[in-house]
Amino acid sequence: MTPRDKIPVAVLGATGSVGQRFLTLLADHPWFDVQALTASDRSAGKAYGDAAHWLQSTPLPERFARMEVLKSAPPIPCPLVFSALDASVAGEVETAFASTGHVVISNAKSHRMDPSVPLVVPEVNPDHLQVASTSSRGGGAILTNPNCSTIGLVLALKPLWDTFGLKRVSVVTMQAVSGAGFPGVPSYQILDNVVPYIPGEEEKLESETRKILGTFDGGAVRDAEIRLSAQCHRVPVLDGHLLAVSVELGRKAEASELRDAWERFSGEPQAKALPTAPRHPVHFLEEDDAPQPRLHRDLDGGMAASVGRLRPCSILDFKFNTLSHNTIRGAAGGALLLAELAVAKGLLEREGARTVGVET
Amino acid sequence: MTPRDKIPVAVLGATGSVGQRFLTLLADHPWFDVQALTASDRSAGKAYGDAAHWLQSTPLPERFARMEVLKSAPPIPCPLVFSALDASVAGEVETAFASTGHVVISNAKSHRMDPSVPLVVPEVNPDHLQVASTSSRGGGAILTNPNCSTIGLVLALKPLWDTFGLKRVSVVTMQAVSGAGFPGVPSYQILDNVVPYIPGEEEKLESETRKILGTFDGGAVRDAEIRLSAQCHRVPVLDGHLLAVSVELGRKAEASELRDAWERFSGEPQAKALPTAPRHPVHFLEEDDAPQPRLHRDLDGGMAASVGRLRPCSILDFKFNTLSHNTIRGAAGGALLLAELAVAKGLLEREGARTVGVET
Amino acid sequence: MTPRDKIPVAVLGATGSVGQRFLTLLADHPWFDVQALTASDRSAGKAYGDAAHWLQSTPLPERFARMEVLKSAPPIPCPLVFSALDASVAGEVETAFASTGHVVISNAKSHRMDPSVPLVVPEVNPDHLQVASTSSRGGGAILTNPNCSTIGLVLALKPLWDTFGLKRVSVVTMQAVSGAGFPGVPSYQILDNVVPYIPGEEEKLESETRKILGTFDGGAVRDAEIRLSAQCHRVPVLDGHLLAVSVELGRKAEASELRDAWERFSGEPQAKALPTAPRHPVHFLEEDDAPQPRLHRDLDGGMAASVGRLRPCSILDFKFNTLSHNTIRGAAGGALLLAELAVAKGLLEREGARTVGVET
Amino acid sequence: MTPRDKIPVAVLGATGSVGQRFLTLLADHPWFDVQALTASDRSAGKAYGDAAHWLQSTPLPERFARMEVLKSAPPIPCPLVFSALDASVAGEVETAFASTGHVVISNAKSHRMDPSVPLVVPEVNPDHLQVASTSSRGGGAILTNPNCSTIGLVLALKPLWDTFGLKRVSVVTMQAVSGAGFPGVPSYQILDNVVPYIPGEEEKLESETRKILGTFDGGAVRDAEIRLSAQCHRVPVLDGHLLAVSVELGRKAEASELRDAWERFSGEPQAKALPTAPRHPVHFLEEDDAPQPRLHRDLDGGMAASVGRLRPCSILDFKFNTLSHNTIRGAAGGALLLAELAVAKGLLEREGARTVGVET
Repeated sequence: MTPRDKIPVAVLGATGSVGQRFLTLLADHPWFDVQALTASDRSAGKAYGDAAHWLQSTPLPERFARMEVLKSAPPIPCPLVFSALDASVAGEVETAFASTGHVVISNAKSHRMDPSVPLVVPEVNPDHLQVASTSSRGGGAILTNPNCSTIGLVLALKPLWDTFGLKRVSVVTMQAVSGAGFPGVPSYQILDNVVPYIPGEEEKLESETRKILGTFDGGAVRDAEIRLSAQCHRVPVLDGHLLAVSVELGRKAEASELRDAWERFSGEPQAKALPTAPRHPVHFLEEDDAPQPRLHRDLDGGMAASVGRLRPCSILDFKFNTLSHNTIRGAAGGALLLAELAVAKGLLEREGARTVGVET
Repeated sequence: MTPRDKIPVAVLGATGSVGQRFLTLLADHPWFDVQALTASDRSAGKAYGDAAHWLQSTPLPERFARMEVLKSAPPIPCPLVFSALDASVAGEVETAFASTGHVVISNAKSHRMDPSVPLVVPEVNPDHLQVASTSSRGGGAILTNPNCSTIGLVLALKPLWDTFGLKRVSVVTMQAVSGAGFPGVPSYQILDNVVPYIPGEEEKLESETRKILGTFDGGAVRDAEIRLSAQCHRVPVLDGHLLAVSVELGRKAEASELRDAWERFSGEPQAKALPTAPRHPVHFLEEDDAPQPRLHRDLDGGMAASVGRLRPCSILDFKFNTLSHNTIRGAAGGALLLAELAVAKGLLEREGARTVGVET
Repeated sequence: MTPRDKIPVAVLGATGSVGQRFLTLLADHPWFDVQALTASDRSAGKAYGDAAHWLQSTPLPERFARMEVLKSAPPIPCPLVFSALDASVAGEVETAFASTGHVVISNAKSHRMDPSVPLVVPEVNPDHLQVASTSSRGGGAILTNPNCSTIGLVLALKPLWDTFGLKRVSVVTMQAVSGAGFPGVPSYQILDNVVPYIPGEEEKLESETRKILGTFDGGAVRDAEIRLSAQCHRVPVLDGHLLAVSVELGRKAEASELRDAWERFSGEPQAKALPTAPRHPVHFLEEDDAPQPRLHRDLDGGMAASVGRLRPCSILDFKFNTLSHNTIRGAAGGALLLAELAVAKGLLEREGARTVGVET
Repeated sequence: MTPRDKIPVAVLGATGSVGQRFLTLLADHPWFDVQALTASDRSAGKAYGDAAHWLQSTPLPERFARMEVLKSAPPIPCPLVFSALDASVAGEVETAFASTGHVVISNAKSHRMDPSVPLVVPEVNPDHLQVASTSSRGGGAILTNPNCSTIGLVLALKPLWDTFGLKRVSVVTMQAVSGAGFPGVPSYQILDNVVPYIPGEEEKLESETRKILGTFDGGAVRDAEIRLSAQCHRVPVLDGHLLAVSVELGRKAEASELRDAWERFSGEPQAKALPTAPRHPVHFLEEDDAPQPRLHRDLDGGMAASVGRLRPCSILDFKFNTLSHNTIRGAAGGALLLAELAVAKGLLEREGARTVGVET
């Protein structure tokens, strides 16, 4: 695709930490061309380089630094819009964009549990995208990416769910500070400390997992019948949510079968070779002490989940750890992959959007 | 008790991090007087101040700094001996001291699961001390303190066990680096990271808990029949092990009953007003986000467990967090309280030991 | 002094991190009785326990938890008022209290460089308190405590200044996150990082040091003629500012003379045995690798500076490190000691204030 | 160059942290092909994947994992040998390799100050390589890379030295834990702490800087006549040494001239387009709060120094910060660039070494 053919995209809430990750990942994207950046009214009118407190370890591309920050409201001449907005404003703003014909890929929680909005992890439930086709918001749509702690869980669970079924899942999270955005967690609260509470997180982890693993019956999504119990903690780690999981399977199985299920796991992003797709959605690690946030969060560009320490559980059937990068796979990267999937499936070939010649 | 009446004690392995904690806690102890410090042969003969790399945030008492470090072998003219020895040597050395008439209070794992050795948390199973009376090692005895992650768990479980019974307990730990001793965990391994593996820790947590909550039938201890499953992690925290626990009770109960059980909980150390006893063995904290290692590890001088975030669990019955200071309550302080209990119960009134006039 | 005789005091800005330190230090103070707590209008009317996010490692005293938070404005029936207000509001509010007859002990920067306001470190320049007697604000006064990085420097410099004179001082700081208040430094900014910039800090460190070491000539304070150059950094440390200092003395001296000067150093707080005074204002540490924030910030209850690593400098004369606890000695504790000095010197025996029978 | 034409190289001490960095950087190197890995006798005979505790955030290449670890002694059939050996053994082992015809590129301190051994930073003093030609060790040679804290200093100083001259340089370091190797700094020593002492570091920083900026007069290197004073600290940062520097120049200059000098700075690695050369050896950063270890250590693949916060100094002339990645530019990457320079300058075209067709 030559630059001229790229789809013009906007990033809403571009100055925050997830917004910054979007820019990092979109800087040289083969399909998408960032043409608009928005932020709060306070930042609107400034150059992005002045409005944002850049915190990524790769430099801010000069092209973005010079772009003028817009208000977070339509009209913006981009058919595809990435939302890194704060949940306090995302609900309304995203609806406004969708109802004026934009396809909004949202990282906010506001619409995730809305029955007419697909909540999609591309390797796990790509068929749920059809929920968007059955509803209509003036030609536009809202597609949502799950919470940053949900993603590592569902990537690890999906192959087990498909192969063995799942009855009960217990999960204890150790989540990185970047999951709280910026400024987020005060340093005085987390240095030499762990905080055993993240407001709303346990509920999201439980309900989103059931929706994502649920069944689309042509009209709506029916939640998966899995009993889930979550305990969420914040730890002094920059990036990467580590989860300690225990599962009861639908049928008895050997550890080697679980391992095989993870290693065989592949989905539409891999089949369609989407630009942001990891080579493997799940890496099974054999070391005694893996996965670890600092060592494994960046596997496959931060887009893969890492699973390790599989062993029998004396209460449920098996226990293991899973890890994923919360601001890449768990936020900006996951949303980007979702956009690529939507394009690849033709969801953007609609009125008001430029046709994209992608084989589906 | 005037200084003249104090019991002479030795600290074995006094230069390590647990050994240093022992010295901090014993510096002004009303019953015990430190008269000997031992370490590896490499340190023997040096002044303690030169042999130890002091890492406590209170200064090393001048009196200890000047003491000559001895080899870790009998004879040492102290009836009571605290062992902070590394597990690689503790087994043999402790046996040598016990068989030459010393009462050894050990913090090492070597003898904990030995049927003839009591493994005691003074508020939980003081009656298990009698195991020592029924065995004999030449007039001496070995009394053991549990692993640093076990202690916070059994203090939280004991009131539930007594009041409701316990069927199944799932526990995920987030453990401080001081639990690995010194030098212990390399900083390059734990900064910005979590390590999901501590060799042998999960097994200890499971087996020690069953022994401590077990029943002494006059001859031996019968393990408690509880199904336990543990997942252990190292986090970048200096001191304080935080546990996420989920329990299935022996009978249905309301959250308020669990809370009452914890708040009512008191044991022999409190009844006997032992010098190192916490006012309350368990503090139930009502804040949304408690307990936290940095904020709560020092409650009651680091001798209490803190419990919080009690809520229903959709898999077992209830989930909650518990926290305890791993080098105080979980090591040196716990061992010291155990020694006080042994003295208060008359275990030291034996040949070779000076009589201590403590009401039991 | 019986409780009835204690001086009623208020803490302005009591919910912030310095405000919380004030409460910790005032909880059992022999001279002062906290009778009022203020905060922003948003918190006014709430119970303090609800308004404050308590972050100290000692529990919030129940008595304070129940007190109603007041607005930060007179009238408040306390002759002595501690100000932990944010600099953005401190200037005006403190003036309002002073002009209605209160003695305000301020930790804010707003009035520090005002020629009519004493900027005092009790061991260093107690005579500067007279500046307050010569000015008048309706019977009240404002007394100020220096910036948290200045205090460790002037405590270390004062004995050198008095003994040898000082020509040039170069200082590089490594400052704890608590120096920025709460929420202060975002964790994503400081984990695995150092930030080489703290707005306004270098200027404060230079100008305040010259004022504190300056001469009171009966009417005003004349700045000390010392050339100072500061470079300030934020490091991932909770509490304790560490400074690398290099000095050119007024005359040639041996290292042992500097050491003697520090060890002999004592001031009015020690002579008058003020309740919060450290035994020694400066501890000279001999270890190769001292002082360290975690190990030495709490010496003498966090009220002493620790100096170490004295060695010749090939550019100026000597280099060394100095450390002090930034929220105790560098903020709440320093202000409290200043209040004690003011009371001991009779500054509170004025209209509107209850007489305090303290020998001066 | 086709693989067949690549120069066979060995990595001595390959299991340590610098050794691991070498492997990461050599994995796909266009000129060098790793054919041998050595470690201590304890590891010899094992597969590298079993012998090394891999701690890099990129996976260990499978090819290296399977290689058998050799003892650190000749003969090894590689003309070029990278030494990541510990200083305790490096001296002797490197001499053994050099005297059997190998060119040894060493990261150890053992031979750095030896008059017959070049100590080279390729952009700074490439001409010093001729020292090696004038000496002879049986056809081989030892070329050394400076200490990890020296490199960021000399890269920042070189353009100033060439343009203005330098009289006095004061430097305070804040060094990452990886600088101490692995296991290196215990986590209990550095979490929530700064350690103001690194044995031998200040001396190395001073003497190496003078040698590197010195003059090669055809026979030997004459040290630069600069007065240097260093104060070294360890901070809780994973990678990246940050330095606070103050300089007195040989002539008066404006800040803009210093900036120009840094921005214009380029050397032989850039002119010869060596594979590992950074685009710019020094990045001058304009942000108020740059450079920061986490944000800027990876600029130009970790091979560039970042300079910022330039401002006048009231004692010397100017002060600023400089940062460089201590295990990339400051160790393995710097040594690799040095090897590339040596090859490009024809130093390897000698008996026993395969000819490499590189334009010089």
